[in-house]
Amino acid sequence: MILLTGIGELTTNDPSLAGGADRYGTLADAAVLIEDGRIVWAGPASDSVARHARGDSAAVVDAGGRAVIPGFVDSHTHLVFGGDRAEEFAARMAGRPYVAGGIRTTVAATRAASDDQLRARLAGFVAELHRQGTTTFEVKTGYGLTVRDEERAARLAAEVTPEVTFLGAHVVPAEYADARDEYIDLVCGPMLDACAPFCRWIDVFCETGAFTPAESRRILAAGVEKGLRPRVHGNQLGPGEGVRIAVEVQAASVDHCTYLDDDDIAALAGSDTVATLLPGVEFSTRQPYPDARRLLDAGVTVALASDCNPGSSFTSSMPLMIALAVREMGMTPAEAVWAATAGGARALRRDDVGLIAPGARADLLLLDAPSRVHLAYRPGVPLVGAVYRGGVRL
Amino acid sequence: MILLTGIGELTTNDPSLAGGADRYGTLADAAVLIEDGRIVWAGPASDSVARHARGDSAAVVDAGGRAVIPGFVDSHTHLVFGGDRAEEFAARMAGRPYVAGGIRTTVAATRAASDDQLRARLAGFVAELHRQGTTTFEVKTGYGLTVRDEERAARLAAEVTPEVTFLGAHVVPAEYADARDEYIDLVCGPMLDACAPFCRWIDVFCETGAFTPAESRRILAAGVEKGLRPRVHGNQLGPGEGVRIAVEVQAASVDHCTYLDDDDIAALAGSDTVATLLPGVEFSTRQPYPDARRLLDAGVTVALASDCNPGSSFTSSMPLMIALAVREMGMTPAEAVWAATAGGARALRRDDVGLIAPGARADLLLLDAPSRVHLAYRPGVPLVGAVYRGGVRL
Repeated sequence: MILLTGIGELTTNDPSLAGGADRYGTLADAAVLIEDGRIVWAGPASDSVARHARGDSAAVVDAGGRAVIPGFVDSHTHLVFGGDRAEEFAARMAGRPYVAGGIRTTVAATRAASDDQLRARLAGFVAELHRQGTTTFEVKTGYGLTVRDEERAARLAAEVTPEVTFLGAHVVPAEYADARDEYIDLVCGPMLDACAPFCRWIDVFCETGAFTPAESRRILAAGVEKGLRPRVHGNQLGPGEGVRIAVEVQAASVDHCTYLDDDDIAALAGSDTVATLLPGVEFSTRQPYPDARRLLDAGVTVALASDCNPGSSFTSSMPLMIALAVREMGMTPAEAVWAATAGGARALRRDDVGLIAPGARADLLLLDAPSRVHLAYRPGVPLVGAVYRGGVRL
Repeated sequence: MILLTGIGELTTNDPSLAGGADRYGTLADAAVLIEDGRIVWAGPASDSVARHARGDSAAVVDAGGRAVIPGFVDSHTHLVFGGDRAEEFAARMAGRPYVAGGIRTTVAATRAASDDQLRARLAGFVAELHRQGTTTFEVKTGYGLTVRDEERAARLAAEVTPEVTFLGAHVVPAEYADARDEYIDLVCGPMLDACAPFCRWIDVFCETGAFTPAESRRILAAGVEKGLRPRVHGNQLGPGEGVRIAVEVQAASVDHCTYLDDDDIAALAGSDTVATLLPGVEFSTRQPYPDARRLLDAGVTVALASDCNPGSSFTSSMPLMIALAVREMGMTPAEAVWAATAGGARALRRDDVGLIAPGARADLLLLDAPSRVHLAYRPGVPLVGAVYRGGVRL
């Protein structure tokens, strides 16, 4: 039993813990009680529950007035890959033309890597995520694009997270450039069969240059048929049908959402589909940011995620996503922290993470700051101090 | 004696170490030899110097192919203060009016703090700087604005760095609102006398709403008369004479440089005055970024610094400054890393830091990355692994 007390500002994301008036369930001078890896109680530090816990010889951790928030939930990453694309990045930033294969460069490097090389790389990323306060994360396949390589990516990802997404429909690989229907048959058939045992989710990159609306519908339906739940990459590079398809198939989330029209927003607002925004992409590709304010004002549920990948967003920093959401996308610091915790949990249809409330897994972050606002107010500074996951300090 | 070897990419900032062709003195598969806190040699890992050092039982550290760069030199901070302004920040980001005192809020909180409170806060910031790879930093006074409080700030700053700047001319304090000439007399007289023993630099905020060109010239001259060297805050909020005054008084640096005309740039290019850019300010105040590309193309020496302060830029992250300089200001990753190391050293007129070359203090950073490009390519991710300062691992 652990009693974490002396919390200057506790963000629970459970309005009922703060009298229902505050969406973020914020408490001042608070304490949290952890038992067997779960939150069993959260409330005022002066409450009798906290006093009794001390009597029951709970291990007492004093936060010294610091802020505590739930662990970050990063619902969109691509962490199984080989190589990097630093040169492509530098050329893009310099405005220089760069003749390279984009995603296909990473596909080649990933196929060439051994299982152990990919596993070691992934372990490095997991340590990096934990150090920065991400305690739940999704990982997509999509740099294998053969039955063998996609199965391997799904299997390795499943070693580190239950939130694995099959993204055979990331891009049509070079060897199928003149036979895209054959590739889609492969994705919907043998590749899906090989990956499904390791996956919870099916995803498709529905965008001009990637997969058409008709192809996207077919791929998502095939995954659903195999028991996977849908999520969609959409409306990143221009207007399109990604959002409407996501709502139509009741996807948990549609990710990117940079180019939306009024109908897209109305569709999202009338659905349970989360709009997951990925500002690391816009930062690293120098593209316009999505308008989070417009989505929030329309009543859409918004999540923030890193999209960590070697091409368009090689960051795993959820604090930077929060700072960018506040600087560039019209979110308040509280909204951004919610989107990076509870929002991510909604995008993964999880009710055991993203909040600090009885029954939830004890994933929480002690910030080296008196308030969650500092995650945006102090951009770039590593403010995540102690990280607890399942009640264990990482 | 320490032999750091297995360095995949070594940025020395000494062109002569790389045959003179590369401004950044970059070496692949390199090693560095450290003795008595100084660099004694840097070169190819296969060189006989490295082999002999092993024979001489140097402690060998294997960088495992990682990149090594000089420690960051942050030439512009304001780290002696009380309180914070998180609410003002949140209101500004939300576009809400916020009736508060700006700098004067921090002046009141700083005056109210005890020496020990300010010293503890400062120690916390120094630890934060070190953790992020900043091994040399400047600290300004400017939140005291009485003889006693400015002297105290200078004295406390001098406990942690030799690079202390007297900035009594930060803003005219409220109590002198109707007697600004009296305040300037105070700054140039008793306040300067009290602070000078602890300071190396004199600075003035030359801007509409702060100090006029005539006042700025008088204040800088008074400081120079007392043996301090000049630096200037200028051209932050609009066009003005800050740059021209800085060049005229041969200031080591003019800081901000957001609003420059062709004459300003020509003056800088024809001088030894460094243009120090502070993109944390533009990030945190949602202002346009300075055009680093234009300065570099004109031959101006550019430095990057954090301006860490509780009002306009509460970040101490030099890696974020590099990422912003690349994303927003037209710098290449190599130029940005140079500006955050050698550039900062030039802005402080130091030749013993900001480079990895024989005779320099052994300040260097092992990055958790194969290349310095990753500091911009992986924004927000804490990539600074081991930090050495004066040959000691922090």
